[in-house]
Amino acid sequence: MKHLDELKARLREIHRLQSAAQLLGWDQRTYMPPCGAEARARQIAMLERLAHEKFTDPAVGQLLEELQGYEESLPYDSDEASLVRVTRRDYERAARIPAEFKTEYDENAATTYHVWTRARAEDDFAAVEPYLERTLDLSRKYAEFFPEADHVIDPLVAMSDEGITGAFLRDLFGELRRHLEPLVESIEERQPPERSFMGQRFPAESQLGFGLQVAERLGYDLARGRQDLSDHPITTMIALDDVRITTRVNENDLTGALFGTIHETGHALYTQNIRKELEGLPIGRGATAGVHESQSRLWENLVGRSRPFWEYWYPRLQALFPEQLGDVALDAFYRALNVVEPGLYRVGADEVTYSLHCAVRFELEMDLLEGRVAVSDLPRVWRERHVETFGLAPANDREGVLQEMNWYCGRIGGMYQHFTLGNIMSAMWFESALEAHPELEAEMAEGRFETLLNWLAKNVHTHGRKFTIPELVERAVGKEVSAEPYISYLKTKYSQLYGLSSA
Amino acid sequence: MKHLDELKARLREIHRLQSAAQLLGWDQRTYMPPCGAEARARQIAMLERLAHEKFTDPAVGQLLEELQGYEESLPYDSDEASLVRVTRRDYERAARIPAEFKTEYDENAATTYHVWTRARAEDDFAAVEPYLERTLDLSRKYAEFFPEADHVIDPLVAMSDEGITGAFLRDLFGELRRHLEPLVESIEERQPPERSFMGQRFPAESQLGFGLQVAERLGYDLARGRQDLSDHPITTMIALDDVRITTRVNENDLTGALFGTIHETGHALYTQNIRKELEGLPIGRGATAGVHESQSRLWENLVGRSRPFWEYWYPRLQALFPEQLGDVALDAFYRALNVVEPGLYRVGADEVTYSLHCAVRFELEMDLLEGRVAVSDLPRVWRERHVETFGLAPANDREGVLQEMNWYCGRIGGMYQHFTLGNIMSAMWFESALEAHPELEAEMAEGRFETLLNWLAKNVHTHGRKFTIPELVERAVGKEVSAEPYISYLKTKYSQLYGLSSA
Repeated sequence: MKHLDELKARLREIHRLQSAAQLLGWDQRTYMPPCGAEARARQIAMLERLAHEKFTDPAVGQLLEELQGYEESLPYDSDEASLVRVTRRDYERAARIPAEFKTEYDENAATTYHVWTRARAEDDFAAVEPYLERTLDLSRKYAEFFPEADHVIDPLVAMSDEGITGAFLRDLFGELRRHLEPLVESIEERQPPERSFMGQRFPAESQLGFGLQVAERLGYDLARGRQDLSDHPITTMIALDDVRITTRVNENDLTGALFGTIHETGHALYTQNIRKELEGLPIGRGATAGVHESQSRLWENLVGRSRPFWEYWYPRLQALFPEQLGDVALDAFYRALNVVEPGLYRVGADEVTYSLHCAVRFELEMDLLEGRVAVSDLPRVWRERHVETFGLAPANDREGVLQEMNWYCGRIGGMYQHFTLGNIMSAMWFESALEAHPELEAEMAEGRFETLLNWLAKNVHTHGRKFTIPELVERAVGKEVSAEPYISYLKTKYSQLYGLSSA
Repeated sequence: MKHLDELKARLREIHRLQSAAQLLGWDQRTYMPPCGAEARARQIAMLERLAHEKFTDPAVGQLLEELQGYEESLPYDSDEASLVRVTRRDYERAARIPAEFKTEYDENAATTYHVWTRARAEDDFAAVEPYLERTLDLSRKYAEFFPEADHVIDPLVAMSDEGITGAFLRDLFGELRRHLEPLVESIEERQPPERSFMGQRFPAESQLGFGLQVAERLGYDLARGRQDLSDHPITTMIALDDVRITTRVNENDLTGALFGTIHETGHALYTQNIRKELEGLPIGRGATAGVHESQSRLWENLVGRSRPFWEYWYPRLQALFPEQLGDVALDAFYRALNVVEPGLYRVGADEVTYSLHCAVRFELEMDLLEGRVAVSDLPRVWRERHVETFGLAPANDREGVLQEMNWYCGRIGGMYQHFTLGNIMSAMWFESALEAHPELEAEMAEGRFETLLNWLAKNVHTHGRKFTIPELVERAVGKEVSAEPYISYLKTKYSQLYGLSSA
């Protein structure tokens, strides 16, 4: 027990450094005065470096070794065994990475991101190309530290989504393409719903007030959180009792702020419901990026874009914006919220085309890592794939390969699967919760969300990071990870919306 | 040079930990959700502990030793010699304090503060008395680590105000009493000015907007700072390019928010004008608590409560609040701003009685440390001294010995002199700036403050913490630290205001 207590004390200290870095990052995006940026970057880098040094201290490895017998004497799913197991996995992973490599990797990440922001603004892929070359090279090198992996992408995916392999993802995206491409085609044959009323002027303050009211009603505890504005919506965990969200607001778009808020609320609800006993430990946060996304996307889409949800909220929204929405019927509003339309951007894409955007990106990651596509060819191949998948070509690289930051943050491989894993798990959770509580949708129509939240808290949130994705899914719904519930959800919902005969 | 570079690198790392702790503290007082407090206290304590550990690392002592020859080869006032000298002073001071004592001291500070907040709310001195006993005991013990000191209070004062001794302060407060008590008496014989118009309703947003406009005009750079609300106004230095102030606002009091803003702006201007080369080093912040207070109180009082200042600002304030102030003449407003009235509180006291409050407190610190007054007698003695000095007795301990946090933050001794040192230095700076720039007051009446700010930046701010109080005063004004300019300023100003024949 002495060893376990010492391990916990060390881990909690590391966690506090990381929490401080989290707050510094939150402030950087919300309130920091512009000239504070330079010092801030150095402060955050220093805290992260200290946390890393403390975690890779051989004394931690020693403690984990001492604890092996104790771990084996305990049930696999106990807090203590899970703590030792997950910490050992993290430790062994970190121990594989030489300090010089980590420095090189971190520096390339920071520089590439910086160069990308300008390259995007100036539509100049060539400017960032050598950095992206280096990123690809470093991503491959990272994977080489894990020679036992079946595929170069596996260690990269594992950084975000423990328990998921490249082979699994290849099948998953193949299956999604097979089902969703025909669905999009059928939808495109139909008359698109009217939605011009969504582009009227909706004052920012009213939008934000409404979003926050929704967030609270979904269960977001504002004594343990808050909402602020930032360029890109984020959720920041400073402690289990201090989980903050941000959103952005555009007065000519009713949905941006609201769905930003609901999405981040999903992340925040996850963290606010992790068991307090796990606080400050590596198992005291969300399981993986994909599981986190399964929470945000469940609340954003399966709840927030559902008809029962709006049965409760739409009269309230109409009362807030009587001039803009007084004459718009609930069904018209519901259809407008769920317009399917192939586009050039993943961010803001509808539910049906969203996973196809991720498929294109995942496939490109595989092609880059396997050497079938060169970085210098990326703009062209990006264009071709978008024409193939969506029938649309970006006019330039700004709307193409430069559109989003992910690959420019230092890694190619494992940067897109979590969005889709989030989608498919969201449908698994929802299906299972509905089976256990058939009254759930009727409750939502009355503005009651606690049955759903309690199901998620009990089956997902409370465990923190004790389990891998397959373990968590098996425990929660008794099945293997599968796209079937998600595909079925999309087919049913959009067949009804677009009057498709059979899906 | 290798040694110097290594020392600087270590010191900058420590500074970044401290900066992170500063931001965590700022957030704690501004935006932190209520339930975040528990984790936050632990995060801050951990960052401070790490910074302390890194500073007291024997390797730092080793580097300082290696640098002794180099230091001696340089001019005393060079950045490098000052860095080594000041860092050595800090290091030797920290090295005297055993780690166990520091832990005991810090824990007592945290607990006592916590107990005090409740004791004050419940007017229950007995509840906090044993903690205050322990505080006195620990303060004495701290002083014992410096056996070369002439008086037990000297090492305690040096924690805040390097270069100032208890003997000096005893004389200073004696002198202030001799001059200010008769001044207060003469003023009390006069008719008090009308000031009921100050208590009208002044909407919060207008008050805050006006304050921020003043702050910017005084030279506060909002690209490198910002203002937020908190229970007690504070200034936080996160970096030389990120210096934030807070204020509080009461709609029935025109002066609280404004003078809070100007006071904190004074602190912020100091930090924003420290030379960038000193950033991240122990000499890259304000010289001492008293010197800091000399900046805040200069801008708050010698500028912000002066007639030239209001010649410029009063028409603008009237335009903002035409109903409330349209009929109030500038002179009436100026008199109302400068009402002298003995009271029970230091915070919010007028310029004339303010230093008398500090005198009472400093004398009680001496009495406690020398054993002439026991902690258990403190409520009674506090009452008696207030009757003697102000002719007023607090009705209870809430308005008495429990009124402010200072002694309940872990230390008795050195907790009050900096306010008065600030006052007397503010007058020294102002007198000297005016001698060099006789046009200064005429400029203020036109809303121009850059001549004064430049004088302060050049003679005080730029040096950071290179010099002790006597050194800094000698360099800036060519004199010894003296209360004379301050006493003379008060006598002149208040004789005019109250029509006293001779002062």
